[in-house]
Amino acid sequence: MQKSIALIEFSKIAVAIKCADEMTKAADIDLLQTKFICPGKYSVLIGGKISAVKSSLNTGLNLAEGEKAVIEKLLIPKVSEEVLEMLKYKKIDKDKVKSLGILEYNNIASGIIAADTAVKAAEVHLVMLKLGMTTGGKAVVIFTGDNQACQHGINACESSVNDKYLISKSFISSPSQKLIDSIF
Amino acid sequence: MQKSIALIEFSKIAVAIKCADEMTKAADIDLLQTKFICPGKYSVLIGGKISAVKSSLNTGLNLAEGEKAVIEKLLIPKVSEEVLEMLKYKKIDKDKVKSLGILEYNNIASGIIAADTAVKAAEVHLVMLKLGMTTGGKAVVIFTGDNQACQHGINACESSVNDKYLISKSFISSPSQKLIDSIF
Amino acid sequence: MQKSIALIEFSKIAVAIKCADEMTKAADIDLLQTKFICPGKYSVLIGGKISAVKSSLNTGLNLAEGEKAVIEKLLIPKVSEEVLEMLKYKKIDKDKVKSLGILEYNNIASGIIAADTAVKAAEVHLVMLKLGMTTGGKAVVIFTGDNQACQHGINACESSVNDKYLISKSFISSPSQKLIDSIF
Repeated sequence: MQKSIALIEFSKIAVAIKCADEMTKAADIDLLQTKFICPGKYSVLIGGKISAVKSSLNTGLNLAEGEKAVIEKLLIPKVSEEVLEMLKYKKIDKDKVKSLGILEYNNIASGIIAADTAVKAAEVHLVMLKLGMTTGGKAVVIFTGDNQACQHGINACESSVNDKYLISKSFISSPSQKLIDSIF
Repeated sequence: MQKSIALIEFSKIAVAIKCADEMTKAADIDLLQTKFICPGKYSVLIGGKISAVKSSLNTGLNLAEGEKAVIEKLLIPKVSEEVLEMLKYKKIDKDKVKSLGILEYNNIASGIIAADTAVKAAEVHLVMLKLGMTTGGKAVVIFTGDNQACQHGINACESSVNDKYLISKSFISSPSQKLIDSIF
Repeated sequence: MQKSIALIEFSKIAVAIKCADEMTKAADIDLLQTKFICPGKYSVLIGGKISAVKSSLNTGLNLAEGEKAVIEKLLIPKVSEEVLEMLKYKKIDKDKVKSLGILEYNNIASGIIAADTAVKAAEVHLVMLKLGMTTGGKAVVIFTGDNQACQHGINACESSVNDKYLISKSFISSPSQKLIDSIF
């Protein structure tokens, strides 16, 4: 059975940690990541069976609602394995970089949704998933594949992720070795 | 004799470093920490005998005043040993975590005052003292103890620290092991 | 022949990486650095022969213009060796610190220009060149030399760098050992 994930981005850190605790108590989920995010936000990422994840997410949202502490949230029922690996900071293989699709969002939930959307929609692989830190709270998703796949991946993200969160996107056909050596 | 500490948070970095130098020259104090803080602030923390610390603090404040470079300041005459240890990034013992009190402020001076207040007022121990970095300039204080002590600690902070700086607070009774493993 | 450098600070990361790729393809330059900068900016630094650097810079600027993604740019035809070394995070020798000149700008291009200006104008050496990270996107330049040289360096920067970008500046005559040990 495939894993589901959910994430809440909080604007208030003390509330976020309290919610994370309640979320672990509400259902049998894994607390995959709790993280400080620029500038002053905090994210809580959980994973597990869909019913448990939903229940845990709702517990967190209900608790945070009264505190006006939620910036954004996501629920991905059957998340791709590749997204889960990137969330654990998988080291990428520079030799496998072909063309690139790049998407930049102003919150991290959108970045995770885009990453999952792209790998499910097209023959692309994730090579970067920056979520908040060193980006002022923005998400940057980079995937690789042949030209057509990258463009297909970008299009799929544009259809699936709310475009009010998109800051910029780009497609790089056959990136130079200098670029690859510098950005990865 | 117990140590005193003082801190100035500056909005201008060149002014801050100049002040730090004058503060070390004005009295026999220890320059405990000089630090870049998100987003573009700089903090100078000194320690020593109360008379020296006061004199050094005043020197820094006088110099910075003309430059409109001071965001916040603090002076704690007899600071608790535990706060001093946390300022040096003490590793915490996860096995000793009981319930939690969490306070979040929009400046780091308030976070240090809260930490000192809590450990003096209640049977609690500091387990996190985040000051500015990775928090967008906010301070996060987390202490542990039994339920009553944590609530007592939170109340003491609310009485002692200017509440216009408080962003959020929370009390966690018996945090889950999952939470403890994730946040510490 | 002396090396030239150019830098573009971008507000949009996906655009920035696309531009970096085109810049490496437009002329025979070295991609010296690509970097995430607080809060959510991205810088691309190139080096090489002046004609190649100019051509590459123009390619990047033209591409970014339509996207309104450029915050600031610079072109230094014959950059000082010392600036190039600092850009690679040269470790400084604390024993050689004399007096200090400190300049703080609200963008990193201005910081690099100031660093280059100071070492060319006066008998000073760079001891810190903070560019964006941990400074909320600000640049901090610190150089050392005797009193007269430091003041001369500060004056030269004030003449050469657009003063609307200057946040603060300071001159420290014979900094205390405590300051030197703390800030470096």
